[in-house]
Amino acid sequence: AGAPNPKPPEPIRGLLGMGWGDLGVNGEPSRETPNLDRMAAEGMLFPNFYSANPLCSPSRAALLTGRLPIRNGFYTTNAHARNGYTPQEIVGGIPDSELLLPELLKEAGYVSKIVGKWHLGHRPQFHPLKHGFDEWFGSPNCHFGPYNNRARPNIPVYRDREMVGRFYEEFPINLKTGEANLTQIYLQEALDFIKTQQARGRPFFLYWAVDATHAPVYASKPFLGTSRRGRYGDAVREVDDSVGRILSLLGDLRIRESTFVFFTSDNGAALVSAPRQGGSNGPFLCGKQTTFEGGMREPAIAWWPGHVPAAQVSYQLGSVMDLFTTSLSLAGLKPPSDRAIDGLDLLPAMLQGRLTDRPIFYYRGNTLMAGRPPRAGSGVPRASLTFPPASLQGVDFCPGQNVSGVTTHTQEEHTELPLIFHLGRDPGERYPLRFDSTEYLDALGRISPVVRQHQAALVPGQPQLNVCDRAVMNWAPPGCEKLGKCLTPPESVPEKCSWPH
Amino acid sequence: AGAPNPKPPEPIRGLLGMGWGDLGVNGEPSRETPNLDRMAAEGMLFPNFYSANPLCSPSRAALLTGRLPIRNGFYTTNAHARNGYTPQEIVGGIPDSELLLPELLKEAGYVSKIVGKWHLGHRPQFHPLKHGFDEWFGSPNCHFGPYNNRARPNIPVYRDREMVGRFYEEFPINLKTGEANLTQIYLQEALDFIKTQQARGRPFFLYWAVDATHAPVYASKPFLGTSRRGRYGDAVREVDDSVGRILSLLGDLRIRESTFVFFTSDNGAALVSAPRQGGSNGPFLCGKQTTFEGGMREPAIAWWPGHVPAAQVSYQLGSVMDLFTTSLSLAGLKPPSDRAIDGLDLLPAMLQGRLTDRPIFYYRGNTLMAGRPPRAGSGVPRASLTFPPASLQGVDFCPGQNVSGVTTHTQEEHTELPLIFHLGRDPGERYPLRFDSTEYLDALGRISPVVRQHQAALVPGQPQLNVCDRAVMNWAPPGCEKLGKCLTPPESVPEKCSWPH
Repeated sequence: AGAPNPKPPEPIRGLLGMGWGDLGVNGEPSRETPNLDRMAAEGMLFPNFYSANPLCSPSRAALLTGRLPIRNGFYTTNAHARNGYTPQEIVGGIPDSELLLPELLKEAGYVSKIVGKWHLGHRPQFHPLKHGFDEWFGSPNCHFGPYNNRARPNIPVYRDREMVGRFYEEFPINLKTGEANLTQIYLQEALDFIKTQQARGRPFFLYWAVDATHAPVYASKPFLGTSRRGRYGDAVREVDDSVGRILSLLGDLRIRESTFVFFTSDNGAALVSAPRQGGSNGPFLCGKQTTFEGGMREPAIAWWPGHVPAAQVSYQLGSVMDLFTTSLSLAGLKPPSDRAIDGLDLLPAMLQGRLTDRPIFYYRGNTLMAGRPPRAGSGVPRASLTFPPASLQGVDFCPGQNVSGVTTHTQEEHTELPLIFHLGRDPGERYPLRFDSTEYLDALGRISPVVRQHQAALVPGQPQLNVCDRAVMNWAPPGCEKLGKCLTPPESVPEKCSWPH
Repeated sequence: AGAPNPKPPEPIRGLLGMGWGDLGVNGEPSRETPNLDRMAAEGMLFPNFYSANPLCSPSRAALLTGRLPIRNGFYTTNAHARNGYTPQEIVGGIPDSELLLPELLKEAGYVSKIVGKWHLGHRPQFHPLKHGFDEWFGSPNCHFGPYNNRARPNIPVYRDREMVGRFYEEFPINLKTGEANLTQIYLQEALDFIKTQQARGRPFFLYWAVDATHAPVYASKPFLGTSRRGRYGDAVREVDDSVGRILSLLGDLRIRESTFVFFTSDNGAALVSAPRQGGSNGPFLCGKQTTFEGGMREPAIAWWPGHVPAAQVSYQLGSVMDLFTTSLSLAGLKPPSDRAIDGLDLLPAMLQGRLTDRPIFYYRGNTLMAGRPPRAGSGVPRASLTFPPASLQGVDFCPGQNVSGVTTHTQEEHTELPLIFHLGRDPGERYPLRFDSTEYLDALGRISPVVRQHQAALVPGQPQLNVCDRAVMNWAPPGCEKLGKCLTPPESVPEKCSWPH
């Protein structure tokens, strides 16, 4: 692969379960993200940027493969239209057949590191270093806990191939006060990695996947109690401050103009954790777990001084999957041609302001719930083919936001006569277009062929998130002997995962 | 009164029923207000800025008097906690005993003009030129219509003391296409006034009260169909463009640094007009007519290059009434000392970044519905003492936003045990604090004395909006003879106004 730049830019990105509306620049009333707001002022804001799934693991799998979860296998068929992820009882993970971004970037000489949550499977064959990353500091699963080492062990923290401790043990999170030093540790890992690669003159890819804004939310002592928004806000402030410090370092090292940085999130803010531990999806409906806009629309900022023009807003319909294709393009590489790739190269949008037509598909598990037609221009409809259940097994995903006739408690099939929303006039999806209106028929005429074409050409991957087994939990991760922390797994009893999502 | 500046700054402000969330800089996803966003980038944004009432007339009366409507008489006692305004059957208007901003600015030699909607009474004694304005181009009432000249006449458009035509007649508004040239006419009036005063070397006060975003929303041909948000967006784009042209002119005339400009709105976006003719209140609950944040929180930008520092966000709790006091302060004048003034001088916040403690009171008519305690700092509670009815006589003021247990169809009295919200964590007022929490008791302890003190000291003005009479409608405004457009009023039958609000 040829490199268009003498020195290819080094991509960095963050990923953290923050909501679209948590950015000051996206209207959060307390305006507590001065660094991210400055990043947007120095770069390009994408208000129409989407996750590939309203849940963490599938969204991250899509980001790193450039493919919808329905293709890369990050879904379940255990129940209809259910989101699955990778708790520690998951047996599956990212298949070897998938090509991840860091694997491909190796061809252009990139050194890759993931800092933070991996979430693509925790069994040894799924670890980041088996899938192209050169370094890892972070955890394979979410920082739920603390656990008791009998029903389930605490989640390990890895440095590269080995566990170096566990959450709530060597890496404490105080559930009462919300204090944890993790974001500072993750920040230091990022800064050190960047300094080292700059000193060695190596192009690098840093995937900075912090999770302080995921319940249980946490912040380090200097940030606790500093937000007008409570503990969630403290976590946001610390992430914002960290982004500022990373961007500053790039300036200090004089690699601002050769480093491409993208900030986004993996799904909408979790309203089930609101208001104490949940963020804001701005004007959008519902949040994480749903395929309403609040679950799928993400904060998104591109920053590359001297290349991406400053203080721009792009209406390009974007997706986390685009970061795969765009990063390859930055490195002078092409995406694999032997498989369907959903990611789009955003460089035309960023460098020439050229918009590319592309649809957005909203999936829960393997079920297409909604679609947004390619044109980002006027009209801006989206059609809900199947209605995301606003609540399931007692979980209300839209607390305080249920819209009569729109959010439903049971899933409803609308494929033949989808509910269509005009996202320009009605970003909050509160007023479905009238079935008998010309506008409805026009929108349907734009959406239906796109959906049919997508579905006709679709080859689903093997579902990876169907089987769970308490025996595969993090009882004895590599390195546990050195720490004297190996636990004995229970007998293996594989069973269908149950997903209350 | 002494003038602190050799040449006092010339205040300008706009007022137009736009929602907090309609500004790009406040997160509107289509980002269609580049001029207002630039104004914010060159000035100071106030995300915590409030109307004095969630309806047009009382809000404007408060702006021009610096006093709550309960004091200046812009309320009704015909029904409990009802908002009243000035339709053309209203008998009352702004009392002579009230001192309006332009009356006071005369002492400092200011020439004042109102362009657009007056809304403080249309009978001759209430006209703007009787209350301190030197010039007027615009209408006394809202541009509802068209009417048939038998049940009610169309609303007149005045130049100074005389009618020069009527809406839907000499000043057409096409209800089908939404085309109207009014914003362009209002813009030209503003530009001409500014040029003239600058040429004459006179300090001026321009109150630019456009109403294109009030249903029936309208825009001129070049703007129609240009927004991604529909016709309401077209209107917003034209207003935004006009603001840009006004600010440009100040630059061309080299009076940027001697002209203070403030942009705000009179109430939240009207959700009853959504989604086709209604705007966005961002993350806030409900809209116009309610005392939830969506009805009361306003977009607000201060601009004064060389004085108000650029690109700042102020957490000052602000109110439209502050524009009264601040404008006097800019002109080196003091507010009247013979009456209670609710407006605060914002200059310390704008020039020195100094925040002043002050409460916010949320009224419907003469009923105090909610209060926000003085401190703008941490915690940020607000207490709802009485619940605003989300619907009344069949009007739903919160369509698609009703929150179970919070928005109610009947008014509910909660004064003894108010519902308290943490506006930092929960700007959307969806999660009342638990009555048994320490946080609730702390907040109650901060709010209750403020409310008690306010109510104990309150002297309500004489209600001006109680009596209606079809005979007082705009049948024969001054100047109608010249136009041959005088109509014969019906017999006078004064009656209690009925307010479906």
